Amino acid sequence: MAKNNAITLFDLQLASGCTISPFVWRTKYALKHKGFDIDIIPGGFTGIMERTQGFADRVPVIIDDGYWVKDSWLIAEYLDEKYPERPMLFSGDSMKVLTKFIDAWLWRTAIRPWFSCYILDYHDLSHAHDQPYVRESRQTLFLQGRRLEDVQAGREARLPLVVPELEPFRDLLKDTKWLGGETPNYADYCALAVFLWTASVAKIPPLHDDDPLRDYIERGFDLYGGLGRHPGMHTLFGLPGPVKVAAE
Amino acid sequence: MAKNNAITLFDLQLASGCTISPFVWRTKYALKHKGFDIDIIPGGFTGIMERTQGFADRVPVIIDDGYWVKDSWLIAEYLDEKYPERPMLFSGDSMKVLTKFIDAWLWRTAIRPWFSCYILDYHDLSHAHDQPYVRESRQTLFLQGRRLEDVQAGREARLPLVVPELEPFRDLLKDTKWLGGETPNYADYCALAVFLWTASVAKIPPLHDDDPLRDYIERGFDLYGGLGRHPGMHTLFGLPGPVKVAAE
Repeated sequence: MAKNNAITLFDLQLASGCTISPFVWRTKYALKHKGFDIDIIPGGFTGIMERTQGFADRVPVIIDDGYWVKDSWLIAEYLDEKYPERPMLFSGDSMKVLTKFIDAWLWRTAIRPWFSCYILDYHDLSHAHDQPYVRESRQTLFLQGRRLEDVQAGREARLPLVVPELEPFRDLLKDTKWLGGETPNYADYCALAVFLWTASVAKIPPLHDDDPLRDYIERGFDLYGGLGRHPGMHTLFGLPGPVKVAAE
Repeated sequence: MAKNNAITLFDLQLASGCTISPFVWRTKYALKHKGFDIDIIPGGFTGIMERTQGFADRVPVIIDDGYWVKDSWLIAEYLDEKYPERPMLFSGDSMKVLTKFIDAWLWRTAIRPWFSCYILDYHDLSHAHDQPYVRESRQTLFLQGRRLEDVQAGREARLPLVVPELEPFRDLLKDTKWLGGETPNYADYCALAVFLWTASVAKIPPLHDDDPLRDYIERGFDLYGGLGRHPGMHTLFGLPGPVKVAAE
């Protein structure tokens, strides 16, 4: 059992101290859902292997009273298995399968295009000592060698194209308060993590002020005493609307 | 309790006797999942209000020992509520919400484009007495007045474009046997209904022989003694592959 009801979490932070990794974000929500306090071990993109004493080169990693677990999905499964008497994150195998589908859809539909719109912000908001690694690794792994500046350029024209692509998610939320039903569960934390990641890096907003998703996102950020409300976060709302052509 | 373990189902059939409606298909699977025999009341697109004695103008409709229920989703919920001691179709509110998401995705990604590729087949396979209604209603409701012949024309060029769009569904099925996990549930019946509808109308196949979806689809059609194997069904596999350019 977690000592003093607290579990240790290795974070992945920007210079502001704000969490950036969507995987860490969903783990933070999962720990709070299970009713734990979180002992944060701060840190950025580099030095993870050293911080975790050789246990992992990626975060999230948790330590539960001396027991180490890595990988956000496996951490969530661990928490439900170890603490079944606390509120469950998952509700059966089918919900797990279907959560993977909507999560993959949100990554494809939102994170993929937004990544290209915010990759320089992402770099600039990182700790100074992480910036060379962020630039080099992102350019090499994800951007076919293109410079971050060139990838982000022209985003004002690209951001409005993402907005209508999210319509199926808006449709779904018309008839339910949470993906979990009356209360949020791990499907919601996966979905919210997409928007939490975005808010951590978005120096200009991706969504319109009156987006129907706003209610869901704001409620999600407010959960657990405003877990998503770190002062380093940016607003997601305020994308200029379609330019109105004045009548002649 | 259902008399003699049988529930009456108003069907929506083509001239072959094969079910066409995806909503009826998923209700057939739901009834079998709950362990019931099905007393089919045959019929096509017209005369539904008369057949159901004024209860509904659309099918599926079931009668369970004198109690009438309509709408495939509500029928599935009714079956779980009335017969909780039998295998459950749903596993909680979150699974219901997430099923609606993948179902809507499949309709958008598969049924929408395939509808335009098979709408004349759909008409031609209907009962002769249904064909004037099918033509008129489809042209008016879904096709902005365009003729079925004109909508279906050119499908050989359009069908290959749908194949790669299904990749997210293929990805999901790499790691699970069913959307229900180890055993199928109502999420599977919704997904299978998309392919059952297609097989009922597809005079030429929409998918390649070696499509990784084939295993899932074939297993689904084989369930419950080959529930999806009516002789009026067409094969979904055999779409010609990309044309290979011969080396000079």
